Amino acid sequence: MTFRIPPVSQEWLSKASAYQNTLTKPPGSLGFLEEIGVRLAAIGQTLQPSLGKGAVVVCAADHGVTAEDVSAYPSEVTAQMLLNFVLGGAAINQMAGVSDADVWVLDVGVNRDAVADTGGKAGPWFLHTRKVRWGTGNIAQQPAMTRAEAEEAIQAGIDAARRAIQEGATLLAAGDMGIGNTTAAAALTAALLGLEARDVTGRGTGVDDQQYQKKLEVVRTALARAQARLGDLRIADPVEVLAELGGLEIAAIAGVFLAGAEAGLPLVTDGFPVTAGALLACQIQPAVRDYLFAGHRSVEPGHTRQLGALGLRPILELDLRLGEGTGAVLSFPILRAAARVMAGMATFSQAGVSPTLKP
Amino acid sequence: MTFRIPPVSQEWLSKASAYQNTLTKPPGSLGFLEEIGVRLAAIGQTLQPSLGKGAVVVCAADHGVTAEDVSAYPSEVTAQMLLNFVLGGAAINQMAGVSDADVWVLDVGVNRDAVADTGGKAGPWFLHTRKVRWGTGNIAQQPAMTRAEAEEAIQAGIDAARRAIQEGATLLAAGDMGIGNTTAAAALTAALLGLEARDVTGRGTGVDDQQYQKKLEVVRTALARAQARLGDLRIADPVEVLAELGGLEIAAIAGVFLAGAEAGLPLVTDGFPVTAGALLACQIQPAVRDYLFAGHRSVEPGHTRQLGALGLRPILELDLRLGEGTGAVLSFPILRAAARVMAGMATFSQAGVSPTLKP
Repeated sequence: MTFRIPPVSQEWLSKASAYQNTLTKPPGSLGFLEEIGVRLAAIGQTLQPSLGKGAVVVCAADHGVTAEDVSAYPSEVTAQMLLNFVLGGAAINQMAGVSDADVWVLDVGVNRDAVADTGGKAGPWFLHTRKVRWGTGNIAQQPAMTRAEAEEAIQAGIDAARRAIQEGATLLAAGDMGIGNTTAAAALTAALLGLEARDVTGRGTGVDDQQYQKKLEVVRTALARAQARLGDLRIADPVEVLAELGGLEIAAIAGVFLAGAEAGLPLVTDGFPVTAGALLACQIQPAVRDYLFAGHRSVEPGHTRQLGALGLRPILELDLRLGEGTGAVLSFPILRAAARVMAGMATFSQAGVSPTLKP
Repeated sequence: MTFRIPPVSQEWLSKASAYQNTLTKPPGSLGFLEEIGVRLAAIGQTLQPSLGKGAVVVCAADHGVTAEDVSAYPSEVTAQMLLNFVLGGAAINQMAGVSDADVWVLDVGVNRDAVADTGGKAGPWFLHTRKVRWGTGNIAQQPAMTRAEAEEAIQAGIDAARRAIQEGATLLAAGDMGIGNTTAAAALTAALLGLEARDVTGRGTGVDDQQYQKKLEVVRTALARAQARLGDLRIADPVEVLAELGGLEIAAIAGVFLAGAEAGLPLVTDGFPVTAGALLACQIQPAVRDYLFAGHRSVEPGHTRQLGALGLRPILELDLRLGEGTGAVLSFPILRAAARVMAGMATFSQAGVSPTLKP
């Protein structure tokens, strides 16, 4: 797997930043929006960045680790929610409607046949079925998947993202659905960042104290198993670490970000499982980082660790913990506004506004 | 001035909250968005709230207190920016373009003739000219305006808001433009909330240390003058306090919120001067509070005091300090998403998703 992803140029960042300061506003008065606008300009290599339609690829799969009672919901819910996405009744469909985004659903390993493949087009919401396997292995006892399966799942995400881009996406997010996936995301995040299970394990959709203890124990066990096989997980091959700890949708999410960065699009992270996929993509190809924006900060505690490692400030802080890409897609209008400030505002000289501060 | 503003009903809040919990997501997983959705439902008295086009009324006026050297920009900039708004080159025009909002500019006391009156319609951006006076008095030395002028300025805001609503606004924000207006907003906020000058005086568009000391002194002097005339400012007639401390655009902003609440629309605050207008509106008619949403938190320190007094959590925290209504209008898509979650999501029973947590 090789990707041609050019780092975003420092020269464009400086040029965009200088231009930002000629616009009719006190310097710095648009706060974080200015930094976003400068990065969008540099990514697009233009002082007039313009963001049109967006897309979110919601990657879905099941997790063998649900056998350990680590989730508040039964694993059937993954397939049920897939159907809900395709029918337009889920939260992500509402966010996408408000934020002018297509929703692409990618079944990369749900353990039931939830919906017939719609061949990629089924009205406003699209479904790809690319079941690499019917759910991962139980990571408390065995590897999540083989290396070949991990690569296949990444490729499924790449293909889905390329399709979304081909259909006109100019701004790309990933979403996740998979009962049990905060357990896999915790194990993977701890492995990639060299953290302890307790640093990254949260309550997901809402487990009780007893389940939480179980979840912590499972993450520790999975990490120990992976370490026994691969040695220091921070320096091991990230695709091998993924194969050990899962999940299939996290692999696909990494693929979405790899393909999006290769196409030169601004990329938006969602919550904990999606940001685990982003971390993975950055370990596979570090230049991906230059294209990433953090749509929001989740209440899941490990998410703050991930954002810190990526050096990303979240655009929204609304205490979301739903996933599906909801927080990412909600941030699209803010990203568009930051672009439009660069592209649409008059400069001091154009507008005849006194540019200089009083002596 | 009497307003018929019914308080938002507790019964509708409870009904909307119960309905929110039947939607296909873990309870509470949409965080602050759930509270927003419930309030929007209760304001609209419907479980399917729907927010269409928005509007922002940008109220502009000048401040005699700029004679005291309290601002980083010369007062000509107010009129220059008015022209920039009408030509579509300002930050607020970009935000409005992204957020599907009309921009109504209200000149309620700019001290120059910046633009010919367009008769209310001039393409995408509209201008009302209702100069109550050509800038306020210098509050360090004299009242900002007479009581009659204060009432006239409030009425100008009411009329502008009614026009925006008549033209289809379903969501209403106020914006501000007026070099020197953070000084007036600081004095007014301190008066209405019983705070000290230092609690509410910030650096506005960016004054230096010496100007900041001057600004503090001016706020103290203005407060002492108003107090000498009206006694305890927390319990004085708020319109009298406004007449003492200004400004004209803050009066108009209060009018925008009063008219918007009377029409039963969700109302969105922006930064420090706009929220001073919201505080004033709530003192004139407390039920306005039930209709308010805080679009963002400004870096201006007094803004946090205002939000605390109103009991409002800001939707966005992007370190903005521009005004014009930018932070308010940027939050419109988030408000729409919260409404759409209520109106568009499937319930657990509609979607056939397992609703109960595992035993």
